[in-house]
Amino acid sequence: MRAPAARPGDPVAAIETPALVIDLDALERNIDRMAAFAHSRNLRLRPHAKTHKSAQIAAMQTSAGAVGVCVQKLSEAEALAAAGVSDIYISNEVVADDKLVRVAALARHTRLSIAVDSTLGIERLAHAVKAAGSTLDVYVEIDVGQGRCGVAPARAGTLARQVVSHAGLRFAGLQAYHGGAQHLRQSAEREVAIRHAVALASAARASVTSAGMICPLVTGAGTGSFVFEAASGVYGEIQPGSYVFLDRDYADNAPSPHAPGFEHALFVLCQVMSRGAAHAVVDAGHKSHAIDSGLPRVWRRELTFTNGGDEHGILRPGAGGSSDSLPALGEAVWIVPGHCDPTVNLHDHFVCVRGGLQHGRVEAVWPIDARGCIA
Amino acid sequence: MRAPAARPGDPVAAIETPALVIDLDALERNIDRMAAFAHSRNLRLRPHAKTHKSAQIAAMQTSAGAVGVCVQKLSEAEALAAAGVSDIYISNEVVADDKLVRVAALARHTRLSIAVDSTLGIERLAHAVKAAGSTLDVYVEIDVGQGRCGVAPARAGTLARQVVSHAGLRFAGLQAYHGGAQHLRQSAEREVAIRHAVALASAARASVTSAGMICPLVTGAGTGSFVFEAASGVYGEIQPGSYVFLDRDYADNAPSPHAPGFEHALFVLCQVMSRGAAHAVVDAGHKSHAIDSGLPRVWRRELTFTNGGDEHGILRPGAGGSSDSLPALGEAVWIVPGHCDPTVNLHDHFVCVRGGLQHGRVEAVWPIDARGCIA
Repeated sequence: MRAPAARPGDPVAAIETPALVIDLDALERNIDRMAAFAHSRNLRLRPHAKTHKSAQIAAMQTSAGAVGVCVQKLSEAEALAAAGVSDIYISNEVVADDKLVRVAALARHTRLSIAVDSTLGIERLAHAVKAAGSTLDVYVEIDVGQGRCGVAPARAGTLARQVVSHAGLRFAGLQAYHGGAQHLRQSAEREVAIRHAVALASAARASVTSAGMICPLVTGAGTGSFVFEAASGVYGEIQPGSYVFLDRDYADNAPSPHAPGFEHALFVLCQVMSRGAAHAVVDAGHKSHAIDSGLPRVWRRELTFTNGGDEHGILRPGAGGSSDSLPALGEAVWIVPGHCDPTVNLHDHFVCVRGGLQHGRVEAVWPIDARGCIA
Repeated sequence: MRAPAARPGDPVAAIETPALVIDLDALERNIDRMAAFAHSRNLRLRPHAKTHKSAQIAAMQTSAGAVGVCVQKLSEAEALAAAGVSDIYISNEVVADDKLVRVAALARHTRLSIAVDSTLGIERLAHAVKAAGSTLDVYVEIDVGQGRCGVAPARAGTLARQVVSHAGLRFAGLQAYHGGAQHLRQSAEREVAIRHAVALASAARASVTSAGMICPLVTGAGTGSFVFEAASGVYGEIQPGSYVFLDRDYADNAPSPHAPGFEHALFVLCQVMSRGAAHAVVDAGHKSHAIDSGLPRVWRRELTFTNGGDEHGILRPGAGGSSDSLPALGEAVWIVPGHCDPTVNLHDHFVCVRGGLQHGRVEAVWPIDARGCIA
């Protein structure tokens, strides 16, 4: 793990660049707003920790009312459990036997649940759990429109039956997340996509009841769509992740009606390291912020950001601006990452600032516990 | 640092997925071919370690004849020096005072050089070096067409003069790298771009000699263009990085005449974790391989790779193929990353395989010493 870019007590000006910085005030407001929303709708909230990979933030979320967190990978679950997170749902499939042995072992001392979408996956999981003498909550994943993992709704009952045929496995409900809906820019587009997802989730639930079982829960939803799943009467739990930080890509969505307002809470602090007559070069490239969902936005300055490669970003005046607006050599510049989850995964620490980005101080430095946990 | 995905002696089938895997035989051939090329042209070879971030690979390159390595960041230099690399060139600007103190400190026990492109940068560097009592080789960076860092050629002499006005700084030559030329697909396009770069480098050299100084070296070039800098009679050193691994983006270039043939030596091994009727989902998304330069290519299978998000990749049959060609649940799939440098930066280890990807064994696991060194 690299040395942190700052120490508690440091002024913002002392943070080494590039650094991943959290605006703590904004983070806390985001966490509280989502918790209040879920509470007001009588929904369980299980935020996705693939976004922040941090036991500290998971603890803040559960303190505010979340029942636990989701992760995508076994190694994330192991890292967060080791850092004190006690209720973790792997909302994704694991089929490798070696990993399933670890899943079963982890379930002996953590409240753990997992998704499945195949007969083979259930058989292997059951075998591992039996060998370990542990028990596990299992969600059957259905494809509600993304075309990635998950079975067709009509197969849900069969898989649920298979799950409960094994003593160590409990059927906990349906995993029904529509990733493809999250960044449809217009609220009405997202609403239509989620209406379709809800219909498929209802059909899957009917498949489960037709198989003679109860479906305890339908879980899913993300930051772009959760108001629609929440209003459906079908989903009992929501899994938003990015709301804690609000990246540029989510901010580019037109707001959903009745959604709480979230604020940018995650930034990359960078510094001008070279100046031309008509451009400035900062010391943050795409090894500092992920660009899979587009480029970062320069925060509160009329500057455009162009990708300058792995280690550089290039700033130019915004539309109608002149080179007088360019920052000077050595000057600090804040950028809002295009996509928060893979940006966080590039860093070892969050530098947490209290009192605003301009005049605040570093209050804490948090490890990114599950950084690099891709397996 | 995460646990490695395999141990020396393991068969390939035992590697946990997703994992970053080196084909050692191909790596060694790539290293030897570039070394032979540089030797045959009587050129110094200083490979860019921003690609591999590994002291082990740096040692293999210097054993084959390289004079040392380049890095882009101070923290990379510190990490590689700590791991035993003894001749490091930071081919990039550093302007923060705190970092320059560390540059000067590192120069006391490592052969270190650095690039500059501003009066302020030279003054600050000189101040730090004087305070530390160290000495440093300094290259003046000129912009040879990329429009990123570097001064105009006509300013080179003035900055070189400023460098030598300080006792601890030696003027070592010109940094003249054209990043924008590397991925022009046609060899003739790259040749034209480098002809222009060579003209600018010549002009900068003339500026230095007009200022009454000798220009000891012009250094630059990358994997896409080095044959042209090598043939110029102006460049005395080349800095290619990606040739060690050859990513999909470089393989998509039409070959340059007289360039050695390089092979793919870097792969992400992944596994099918979900199967649909017409697609397969693997457990590697863009947290496992960088997609800034496009998607990975599936290795030796007629399958297309679609981005499935942070943790998933989606495989479909290639043109004219049927779903019979899709891999089964649990099956291993090898992919060639779109861009090697930022892909390496996502991982903690290289799993090094000898004897081929199909039937080989893990010979070694190497730490990626400068993983995450972005500052």
